Amino acid sequence: MEMMPTIFFFFLQLLFFSSSNAAVQDFCVGDLTGPEGPAGYSCKKPAIVTVDDFVFSGLGKAGNTSNIIRAAVTPAFSAQFPGLNGLGLSIARLDLAVEGVIPLHTHPGGSELLVVVQGTICAGFISSSANTVYFKTLKKGDIMVFPQGLLHFQINGGGIPAIGFVSFSSPSPGLQITAFALFANNLPSELVEKTTFLDDAQVKKLKAVLGGTG
Amino acid sequence: MEMMPTIFFFFLQLLFFSSSNAAVQDFCVGDLTGPEGPAGYSCKKPAIVTVDDFVFSGLGKAGNTSNIIRAAVTPAFSAQFPGLNGLGLSIARLDLAVEGVIPLHTHPGGSELLVVVQGTICAGFISSSANTVYFKTLKKGDIMVFPQGLLHFQINGGGIPAIGFVSFSSPSPGLQITAFALFANNLPSELVEKTTFLDDAQVKKLKAVLGGTG
Amino acid sequence: MEMMPTIFFFFLQLLFFSSSNAAVQDFCVGDLTGPEGPAGYSCKKPAIVTVDDFVFSGLGKAGNTSNIIRAAVTPAFSAQFPGLNGLGLSIARLDLAVEGVIPLHTHPGGSELLVVVQGTICAGFISSSANTVYFKTLKKGDIMVFPQGLLHFQINGGGIPAIGFVSFSSPSPGLQITAFALFANNLPSELVEKTTFLDDAQVKKLKAVLGGTG
Amino acid sequence: MEMMPTIFFFFLQLLFFSSSNAAVQDFCVGDLTGPEGPAGYSCKKPAIVTVDDFVFSGLGKAGNTSNIIRAAVTPAFSAQFPGLNGLGLSIARLDLAVEGVIPLHTHPGGSELLVVVQGTICAGFISSSANTVYFKTLKKGDIMVFPQGLLHFQINGGGIPAIGFVSFSSPSPGLQITAFALFANNLPSELVEKTTFLDDAQVKKLKAVLGGTG
Amino acid sequence: MEMMPTIFFFFLQLLFFSSSNAAVQDFCVGDLTGPEGPAGYSCKKPAIVTVDDFVFSGLGKAGNTSNIIRAAVTPAFSAQFPGLNGLGLSIARLDLAVEGVIPLHTHPGGSELLVVVQGTICAGFISSSANTVYFKTLKKGDIMVFPQGLLHFQINGGGIPAIGFVSFSSPSPGLQITAFALFANNLPSELVEKTTFLDDAQVKKLKAVLGGTG
Amino acid sequence: MEMMPTIFFFFLQLLFFSSSNAAVQDFCVGDLTGPEGPAGYSCKKPAIVTVDDFVFSGLGKAGNTSNIIRAAVTPAFSAQFPGLNGLGLSIARLDLAVEGVIPLHTHPGGSELLVVVQGTICAGFISSSANTVYFKTLKKGDIMVFPQGLLHFQINGGGIPAIGFVSFSSPSPGLQITAFALFANNLPSELVEKTTFLDDAQVKKLKAVLGGTG
Repeated sequence: MEMMPTIFFFFLQLLFFSSSNAAVQDFCVGDLTGPEGPAGYSCKKPAIVTVDDFVFSGLGKAGNTSNIIRAAVTPAFSAQFPGLNGLGLSIARLDLAVEGVIPLHTHPGGSELLVVVQGTICAGFISSSANTVYFKTLKKGDIMVFPQGLLHFQINGGGIPAIGFVSFSSPSPGLQITAFALFANNLPSELVEKTTFLDDAQVKKLKAVLGGTG
Repeated sequence: MEMMPTIFFFFLQLLFFSSSNAAVQDFCVGDLTGPEGPAGYSCKKPAIVTVDDFVFSGLGKAGNTSNIIRAAVTPAFSAQFPGLNGLGLSIARLDLAVEGVIPLHTHPGGSELLVVVQGTICAGFISSSANTVYFKTLKKGDIMVFPQGLLHFQINGGGIPAIGFVSFSSPSPGLQITAFALFANNLPSELVEKTTFLDDAQVKKLKAVLGGTG
Repeated sequence: MEMMPTIFFFFLQLLFFSSSNAAVQDFCVGDLTGPEGPAGYSCKKPAIVTVDDFVFSGLGKAGNTSNIIRAAVTPAFSAQFPGLNGLGLSIARLDLAVEGVIPLHTHPGGSELLVVVQGTICAGFISSSANTVYFKTLKKGDIMVFPQGLLHFQINGGGIPAIGFVSFSSPSPGLQITAFALFANNLPSELVEKTTFLDDAQVKKLKAVLGGTG
Repeated sequence: MEMMPTIFFFFLQLLFFSSSNAAVQDFCVGDLTGPEGPAGYSCKKPAIVTVDDFVFSGLGKAGNTSNIIRAAVTPAFSAQFPGLNGLGLSIARLDLAVEGVIPLHTHPGGSELLVVVQGTICAGFISSSANTVYFKTLKKGDIMVFPQGLLHFQINGGGIPAIGFVSFSSPSPGLQITAFALFANNLPSELVEKTTFLDDAQVKKLKAVLGGTG
Repeated sequence: MEMMPTIFFFFLQLLFFSSSNAAVQDFCVGDLTGPEGPAGYSCKKPAIVTVDDFVFSGLGKAGNTSNIIRAAVTPAFSAQFPGLNGLGLSIARLDLAVEGVIPLHTHPGGSELLVVVQGTICAGFISSSANTVYFKTLKKGDIMVFPQGLLHFQINGGGIPAIGFVSFSSPSPGLQITAFALFANNLPSELVEKTTFLDDAQVKKLKAVLGGTG
Repeated sequence: MEMMPTIFFFFLQLLFFSSSNAAVQDFCVGDLTGPEGPAGYSCKKPAIVTVDDFVFSGLGKAGNTSNIIRAAVTPAFSAQFPGLNGLGLSIARLDLAVEGVIPLHTHPGGSELLVVVQGTICAGFISSSANTVYFKTLKKGDIMVFPQGLLHFQINGGGIPAIGFVSFSSPSPGLQITAFALFANNLPSELVEKTTFLDDAQVKKLKAVLGGTG
């Protein structure tokens, strides 16, 4: 049997040739310096990919909740964790101090699945068209799904800091916080008012708070 | 050559057998009475499908704009036009009277492409995360695309009624109007305020206008 | 509250970092000079994208119908309107002078949805395998769907010029006009005849008209 | 270690429960009697699925080539071989007697990959828009790909019967033979002529041959 | 302004009509009693959907690790948590007692993303064709991605019980444990040996342990 | 009619302009030197694409079966046949000498469809979770489907060499042979044993045979 390795070597070569330039079949670690396309980033050459491309440690420490919402979102999307590029999922860490709130927002590119790992979180979403509200207070270990593109929120529901992990059905789901979209940019107040029915005073007040202009 | 038709008949039979129970290959006209799945409605039996399943006349007349927004959206989504089921696109008609506004909204399930066919429309959208605003006044014949899931709006930009058609990259893109999602349902005012930074008086005022409670 | 903006600035930074290299999450305006892939063109850098990348004015004027078919198709596919790249839809304008005809054709890459905005159009498609014909005369405001890849046509059905807009479920649906595929290239006449049952005289005549050779 | 099987039994139960109603994860053998949806047929209950649902013997014998085209297409699409339902591919057998021809046709729903297993086949396709012709004579063992939705043909290129297998990127790719779509149905001759530039005599002659009317 | 609510009511009706039979646009809670298709389960009628359809509490308690692998996988796939149906993601809880092991396995239907929430886990996967091994010891808060369909494993890497949550890019990713696929069924030992190079004694021994026959 | 060609020329120009930079609509022949993305390779410029990009002759001759498994797999995936890039399917040739075996393996990226063209092949797959075995001996002309990601095998079932062609629902389905993944790399024996229940002696013996270390 001492010739088997060499015989196998021949057979392995066939396969290796196949794999050597077809690594997209297995994974496509994002090369943030290369061209992007609608499906994501270009792939790093398989030869230089290591296990560290598939591991991310950025979610190990709490996000900074010393801010007005007493909360933080720490994303591990393909832009932060290129190993997810092309693989159809991503994750983020939620830290909610007591009274912490993740404001009403949407993810244009994916559905979200929340798992509570510390404390309690009151979470909900609103259906489109019918505007039905679905919300509930979740305890440690509970999970809740938020269908793609629908407005949803998370609020600390208890007296201790809450922590959750949210998975997404896209490596780059996006995050659009309604209050920031309305008040943290240069969208003219008149347009905000016309398209939301909000009063001018309310709009101007929140633009001042959130750094918007116009 | 008089035997050819029968010979062809044999050949056609082969093909007809193939097509007779595989109509999904061509189209899947929605049967609104059958079970729905994630991909859409069940298919009507091909034998009872007629050209009228592929034609819809509901967009021929103006929607009623005698309302507070002086505007109307008339959808031809798969729920109204089942011939679109499974085909990956849909359409709606926009009517904007003078001063008319389509309030800020998203389509969770698809991108939108607007073509202006009468008057002028000021339209815009807001990118996620960066909150960049992209808006412009469009004249007759101009088109503008609104990427999937992003907040956008349309306003009559001139002195005459404006009409547009908006196509979508889904037969059932959904429509979530932010003001309705916030104020036209039973989402408790306290939650609205916590998740949007709006004042209590503003929230209560708009709930009264839009028929919300709580 | 004067410290809030800076506090928010910290929070916004988190999000901005996320968005700064993940713009594919929102849109991917096509860079026609960059490499293409199966999913479309490379993305322009978000920093240089403006509202004009999402607006196209090429459909505002009638196409030239002074030709044998008395009709014109003016496409706004991703090659003409790169803002559509990756967004799953596109549009074209149809101009049909009196007696105008869009010859029998297919779109290999997408389904089509026609809306008539002026005049009347007789439109139809043919199912695969069963070869069933579905056609109808459409008036202003009517819409008709043509399932992906099936042969279809549009003919001016009235005494005045007709105009329509056709949306597609792909940013690059393609357009294969059967008569051009058969007679406007160098496909040898013998092959055309063998594969279509057409007579040699007919094939040669149409090759002469449409500029074909062989 | 004698207690291990029972301990494993507990563990297996967890998994079995998971699998017992989630069989869609592995396969979805089509139930031709159940409702169809845009994604295909309903699934047979996994409990009654056997290996014979995944095996099809219909391609073992030659199709009948005693017809005007001296050729036959024997499909194993999901309508004939329901085990393919939902799995994204299918296959058909081509038999081409000497002088046999598969007429110009498209598959609206998938790309095609031909492998020649006997004889030689001259095959080609025509690109959309540019109308470029790509054709070549293939010998035993050669493969050729025909991109989705494009017109293509196969002709026996030698002096002996040819056999090929064609795979598709869809379980139900469809088959639209141009000559049948034009001449084997009730599409009025006047419409055929207007939309193809063919002469009335040619159209009437082929309608007679192929069993068309009108 | 007292007439506005009724005017809005009219406008809301338009939208409500749209949503009333098009709920698939937002979500499709699985009806485990209805027909399944390739895209998942049938949808529960929106009228009977409640927030509890979107919340699952089964991951709150540890799985039973009193078994030979000292580990448990508790899935929340669409079969256990029908609210995930059609939404493109799912999750499971991993419990690894000291010395606990999740044996080598694949998920045929999706990629996996692990987040460690207690203890340390040594995890790895093997690329296809090149057979490259990527493995690392992960501490609390670390995440690692396992590309779709590739063999991977998780082992408790420390002296205390470890807990993780694994998200998937499919609501029904499947789970194929190699040792069970080889030794826990009736696949004849001769076939196992021929297709794995394992010795007869080894195969028979493990079939005995894992309850296999043949 | 002598002016028609020039008139048509104008009309063709419109279309040609459309096609000239939108060739992705038809095909995207892989440029193995360009950047790869999650959807595949970059596209060769259409201007330099010829029919030879769509034809591959590498499957015409038998693979070398003078090896321990008495079998060979010759792939025509997008890495070997770039014309398949982006088209959703691929193919490989199986050669099984007498007693030949394709060892237990999976394709992480696609479903497989086998057609037997010479001899007889005993083929089977194992379902996930339930670990059900589906296997059968196939004769010339029989086809069998292997759902995506599931373990399967093929064995020569007769006294003469067997040949088959296997199609895949992906241009780059991957190939992970279980025995190679376990024993032909540097995965430490201790990890192999812990994650497969195999004995140390068995693991070390096969690592020696297949060239593994550790």
